[in-house]
Amino acid sequence: VKVSVLGISQTKFGELWNKSLSCLLAESQFTAIDDAKISVDQIDAIFTGNMCAGLFSNQNNIGALAAQILNFKGPSYSVEGACASGGLALYAGIEAIESGRAQIVLVNGVEKMTDFGSEETTKGLSAACHEHEQMQGATFPGMCAMIARLYMHTYGLTREELAMVSVQSHLNGFVNPNAHIRKKISVADVINAPMVADPLTLLDCSPISDGAASIILCSKKISPKKIFITGSAMATDTILLADRKDLLSWPSTQKAALTALTMASKKISDIDVVELHDGFSIVQLLALEDLGFCKKGTAFKEKQNVLINPSGGLKSRGHPVGATGIVQAVEIVKQLQKNSKVGLTHNVGGCGTTSVVHIFEREM
Amino acid sequence: VKVSVLGISQTKFGELWNKSLSCLLAESQFTAIDDAKISVDQIDAIFTGNMCAGLFSNQNNIGALAAQILNFKGPSYSVEGACASGGLALYAGIEAIESGRAQIVLVNGVEKMTDFGSEETTKGLSAACHEHEQMQGATFPGMCAMIARLYMHTYGLTREELAMVSVQSHLNGFVNPNAHIRKKISVADVINAPMVADPLTLLDCSPISDGAASIILCSKKISPKKIFITGSAMATDTILLADRKDLLSWPSTQKAALTALTMASKKISDIDVVELHDGFSIVQLLALEDLGFCKKGTAFKEKQNVLINPSGGLKSRGHPVGATGIVQAVEIVKQLQKNSKVGLTHNVGGCGTTSVVHIFEREM
Repeated sequence: VKVSVLGISQTKFGELWNKSLSCLLAESQFTAIDDAKISVDQIDAIFTGNMCAGLFSNQNNIGALAAQILNFKGPSYSVEGACASGGLALYAGIEAIESGRAQIVLVNGVEKMTDFGSEETTKGLSAACHEHEQMQGATFPGMCAMIARLYMHTYGLTREELAMVSVQSHLNGFVNPNAHIRKKISVADVINAPMVADPLTLLDCSPISDGAASIILCSKKISPKKIFITGSAMATDTILLADRKDLLSWPSTQKAALTALTMASKKISDIDVVELHDGFSIVQLLALEDLGFCKKGTAFKEKQNVLINPSGGLKSRGHPVGATGIVQAVEIVKQLQKNSKVGLTHNVGGCGTTSVVHIFEREM
Repeated sequence: VKVSVLGISQTKFGELWNKSLSCLLAESQFTAIDDAKISVDQIDAIFTGNMCAGLFSNQNNIGALAAQILNFKGPSYSVEGACASGGLALYAGIEAIESGRAQIVLVNGVEKMTDFGSEETTKGLSAACHEHEQMQGATFPGMCAMIARLYMHTYGLTREELAMVSVQSHLNGFVNPNAHIRKKISVADVINAPMVADPLTLLDCSPISDGAASIILCSKKISPKKIFITGSAMATDTILLADRKDLLSWPSTQKAALTALTMASKKISDIDVVELHDGFSIVQLLALEDLGFCKKGTAFKEKQNVLINPSGGLKSRGHPVGATGIVQAVEIVKQLQKNSKVGLTHNVGGCGTTSVVHIFEREM
């Protein structure tokens, strides 16, 4: 793979009461097109990651909506893989360039989540297996809480150490003007926040956000920014946690990371900056270990030799699900425009059910 | 493009009260794998077209569900483009082979629609633009009825001539053991059926169905069946009918057909058999004209020189939306296994918003 990044954009993330799904998509798309310094008629295809517009906004065919906004008449469709929908759109966009069908593609992620009651939101986020988990009362926070308990029991993680993950995320997000929740928090704040699913409190969980992000890719080295995607991989695992051998590692992340790194001829120690999928604090520890930054059961013990979620991650930057995989890419590109040379994005749907990993490099 | 068809399958279509979404996917996938005479570990990627599982079955991440059923851990995601979701999955699967990332792909279409009340179904089928059409009370049958009225007024189509479209569809579906509605009907039956949206009655509209279909594709000529896909194209148009210049032609169909035929080096007169997207009787006339089989305003006047919807089409075979684009391909492959040499599938989302066209050929 060698795909060049031509332009990036994101909307502010948050509870954006005054912006509809269409508004978010329009703002994100037009800003990316401006950033790429191209015109709409240079775009060959559009890919959009979205999970819940059919339920939340009564709007299907989001690919056509994205196209309509730009008065674009070419190929445009949406892909879905729960919270990994954005990463999958990126994966599909790169595939279109590799196939030779497209030279320039626009890839969007979008989600409008906050106009609805909590019951509708819970229903919409039912990435968990409906027949065997959801109908038994298992929720996403509930399953991650079980994983957290097991991790604490197995590796000796304390409640305070777990809380430190959220504290650091908020410290990073505090300086990100587009972040949903810009507020420094303490270990005590996390521990004393309202309980969601023991041991996870409200401040261990990523928020429900609105937002969109876009990235424009190109098959040729015509980007003045000299930033490339050199690895692109995805892997799946059972939706049902009950079918897994080990709750403390996510093989789909391991497999996607290995494939993407191999594709880019890189080792994990080459990565300067990572935007990983921390839907819950505990999940950041699992991700660091499964991606290969450290040994299993040690992520909370040692300072990592990589910049982790400089944007604030899902926790502080916010998590408009379809947009997350794209805003991760946007953030990594921004970091490569500064000091970093090699970056990695890690986008997950479900409890490690769908993992998508991309490697970004700045050419010297 | 030159992609070989290794295997096909479909479930029976209908009101399948005793089969869940998972059951339908399982039956379809395993039957296709048997038909292709391959094992699961030969599959490189899975693509699934689905529109409404998040709303109807409380189940997202249908790509992961398809993978879980097969104990497959590789790339698998779903694509959505309203009633064109199946055709888009086929398009994406072919792109994966063309990109070199995959050698063998499994492509599914699935929809479970009949376990719900009519209000939920109507909401789920809101492919129309939510903000500008649906909120004003415009429904899909309502918009197609307007198109029918305009066509009758412009080209002199009579109510009886329009009814003949459904009569012929039911005649074809009567001999298809997998069709949802196997019942011969008369012109009088159509005209006297309950009114849905004047002039369209219940027998001008495709039914709400459950069903799944699968096709297995391969990059090399290892299929003993010698059937290939040689053209694959999609195009989009505005979701909003109000933004169109002409209600009586769908430029997305014209564009997709032209691109796919050019790709396959074929003329429309080379096509022996077509499975086209007749969600409503009037739409079959528009499709025949936009695909290029006859001049605008003449489809109802002359007998076409091509076998049209031998399966019964959406009207009689049934229309489980995500499955339709794939079952069209399955039917064309079956026809090529008999007498036909060149076939075409035409799958549409919305009122001509998303059109997907594929060309199939049997090698002599």
